[in-house]
Amino acid sequence: MRIDIITVLPELLRSPFEASILKRAQDKGLVEVHFHNLRDYSTGKYKKVDDYQFGGGAGMVMMIEPIDKCISKLQSERNYDEIIYLTPDGQTLNQNIANELSLKGNLIMLCGHYKGVDQRVRNHFVTREISIGDYVLSGGELAAAVLADSIIRLLPGVLNDETSALSDSFQDDLLAPEVYTRPAEYKGMKVPEILLSGDFPKIEAWRHQNALDRTTKRRPDLLNDKN
Amino acid sequence: MRIDIITVLPELLRSPFEASILKRAQDKGLVEVHFHNLRDYSTGKYKKVDDYQFGGGAGMVMMIEPIDKCISKLQSERNYDEIIYLTPDGQTLNQNIANELSLKGNLIMLCGHYKGVDQRVRNHFVTREISIGDYVLSGGELAAAVLADSIIRLLPGVLNDETSALSDSFQDDLLAPEVYTRPAEYKGMKVPEILLSGDFPKIEAWRHQNALDRTTKRRPDLLNDKN
Repeated sequence: MRIDIITVLPELLRSPFEASILKRAQDKGLVEVHFHNLRDYSTGKYKKVDDYQFGGGAGMVMMIEPIDKCISKLQSERNYDEIIYLTPDGQTLNQNIANELSLKGNLIMLCGHYKGVDQRVRNHFVTREISIGDYVLSGGELAAAVLADSIIRLLPGVLNDETSALSDSFQDDLLAPEVYTRPAEYKGMKVPEILLSGDFPKIEAWRHQNALDRTTKRRPDLLNDKN
Repeated sequence: MRIDIITVLPELLRSPFEASILKRAQDKGLVEVHFHNLRDYSTGKYKKVDDYQFGGGAGMVMMIEPIDKCISKLQSERNYDEIIYLTPDGQTLNQNIANELSLKGNLIMLCGHYKGVDQRVRNHFVTREISIGDYVLSGGELAAAVLADSIIRLLPGVLNDETSALSDSFQDDLLAPEVYTRPAEYKGMKVPEILLSGDFPKIEAWRHQNALDRTTKRRPDLLNDKN
């Protein structure tokens, strides 16, 4: 997989991709992630990438020309499965979308900033619009990092058994059950007896019931979606 | 406002807080953000912060003791309004929660990793559990960065007029209207005439209708929530 992220703030994105699982995935050659600074595609001496919005009102808008140039250059080098624009009014990201995108080959992620991009970019270049949730961020960069992380950790070979994705929340429409580790008692707080019993069939049954109870209490909508 | 982020990967969090609006907010003294490496609170020569889960199964669990020590130290220094655990099975973040948390004084954000934290941490220390969406990430760090960003940009004085939060998506239960900037025509793609008219009352009416149409088409649930 290859992910190209187009942004006015590549420096903001650096550390999340240089640590932990995202770094390991790149070191193993399972994914390539490239940042593209939109200013490198702007013309004129001020490296302008945004301008006032037509019709007046507060907030700058990202211009079509640098984005067109950057996307065109990338498309001249390879084919892309999706050109994704991260925006709060896009389709809301969920685990199914992450699963689906993890099967793609090449992805472009375009990060909005200020009031967003010129609508013509969305109408003519973008193939998919994704939101990571119903809240507004200061830019699309963290959204792109979140989307990339949710996808990359699903690529075969990225996670080791220790962190297997199969028992994660959402993968089976249930929240994950409670987990405990040593010590069995800490300042009077005890681990449930059953988990110390060594009776694995009973433990499995307890975990399933615990996951079901937690989902019923916290996210009944997940159970309804299933039916 | 002060935000203390507890993590096993402080290096992952660095760049998002050293750029753009999050940096400016700190430079202006409007928010202090501190990272705390859990390993500094572990005992023993291996700086252990996680262990196998009781009852068997793949995935390590973050231990209660280093978390207890870190939270206790912070609480001995000041009072905290919330101790937030970032977890996919928490309450789903939305703009109302971001608005509400932006009014608090001191917040702790605890980032999960591996299979999550020992349940006793959640039962006894955490006051609030927040998820940034229905998908799984490789850790809570990006979720903490997203939550912090959604809150910090709302603090008075952080955004200038240019990026005023009042016309953002979600703040009025409507998605934002389309935006356009120069040039008025680019490779045959034109800006809607009305926006070039200079007739501001008509432009306002067009924008409101456009926001309503987009919300009806993309997110009818937002309109239903309102009624």
